[in-house]
Amino acid sequence: MDSYNFEILSKSPVFRRIETTELEGLLSSVSYQFRQFKKGQMIAQSGEQCDYLLNLVKGSIAAEMIDFSGKTIKIEDINSPNPLAPAFLFGSGNKFPVNIVAIEDVKILFIPKSSFIHLLQSNQNILENYLNVVSNRSQFLSRKIRFLSFKTIKGKIAQYILENTRGNNSEEVHLQKSQNELAILFGVTRPSLARVLKDMEDEGIIEVNRRIISIKNKQKLNELLR
Amino acid sequence: MDSYNFEILSKSPVFRRIETTELEGLLSSVSYQFRQFKKGQMIAQSGEQCDYLLNLVKGSIAAEMIDFSGKTIKIEDINSPNPLAPAFLFGSGNKFPVNIVAIEDVKILFIPKSSFIHLLQSNQNILENYLNVVSNRSQFLSRKIRFLSFKTIKGKIAQYILENTRGNNSEEVHLQKSQNELAILFGVTRPSLARVLKDMEDEGIIEVNRRIISIKNKQKLNELLR
Repeated sequence: MDSYNFEILSKSPVFRRIETTELEGLLSSVSYQFRQFKKGQMIAQSGEQCDYLLNLVKGSIAAEMIDFSGKTIKIEDINSPNPLAPAFLFGSGNKFPVNIVAIEDVKILFIPKSSFIHLLQSNQNILENYLNVVSNRSQFLSRKIRFLSFKTIKGKIAQYILENTRGNNSEEVHLQKSQNELAILFGVTRPSLARVLKDMEDEGIIEVNRRIISIKNKQKLNELLR
Repeated sequence: MDSYNFEILSKSPVFRRIETTELEGLLSSVSYQFRQFKKGQMIAQSGEQCDYLLNLVKGSIAAEMIDFSGKTIKIEDINSPNPLAPAFLFGSGNKFPVNIVAIEDVKILFIPKSSFIHLLQSNQNILENYLNVVSNRSQFLSRKIRFLSFKTIKGKIAQYILENTRGNNSEEVHLQKSQNELAILFGVTRPSLARVLKDMEDEGIIEVNRRIISIKNKQKLNELLR
């Protein structure tokens, strides 16, 4: 039964490229625990010290914040087999940034920080995987901040298109991301994004064909950056 | 002469807690290079692959971007003995996010990524230091995004004060950061921040005494969050 857990874990961004049996062997040399939580249960509270690597093995959780009026705001859902708050295990603010609540019955791998450091030093795949996870997070946030500085959705779209065509002398962008991922990057809803893309088509600035955006009027696109 | 370089490097966030002689020994087991650049020289270009850990040993650099109108925008200055773009060595977007230009004559340690991975695995201090650096960056950006969602400087200040007094039943915040660092976190200029703090004092909402901010009217402070 435990081997099924390891099979799932070997698909986590932190443990990918490691065979199930090798992973089982690696973990047997350190302390770890599988813990179960019932639907609705609080797994970690915002501000609580983060001294374990947490990785979902079954189910999904919601990351939530409570604002000053007491209202609960959902930040994101995280599904198995992803890690929880991986960028908050190290650093001077190693506290959970949000409440973590079970959306359904979940099972989570807990590895104490000291054991996880041991794994990072003994296995190069885990080390590189984890550095990729934390660095990707930081790179995503950097990009997001750049897009937040544009007040309008049109400005964000113009910035994204020009950023991705610059240097390759092309008038087309093949979207690497779905419109949903793009909406998350921009911090807007997917319907708003779709509506504004449509507006920009109607205005003759761009043309959208599935995942390909073509520039029709570069001057107008540039003007949207101001 | 090289030992002077290691003395400086042992104060870098990536190599702290390591003695000069130990650091020299560790580096002698991998490949590395000290390279010099003249004032005004381009050290790395935005979009260039980032395959080395770079750490300043002498002088300071400017991180710059060029916008679509061709204007150069300075993002930040980085001084010796700090690392350059440490969160861009790993992850799927491991390209320099900015141009890096020497403000004065500089000397920089270059360690190839594969050698740096070897150091991370062989020395626990370097591993923890580097994870702290990258995680701190990610945590800083997360906070910055929260503050960017408040449109006014008053809203940002209110959020900061309430965040730091919540849970500890206090009506006072001892600033952990200088007003300059706070301005960077908020993405505003220091004079604007100072002016708005003064306004909020005049309106009887808070009182500022050096690094201590006292809440005078909590209801008004809460209203600034809307």
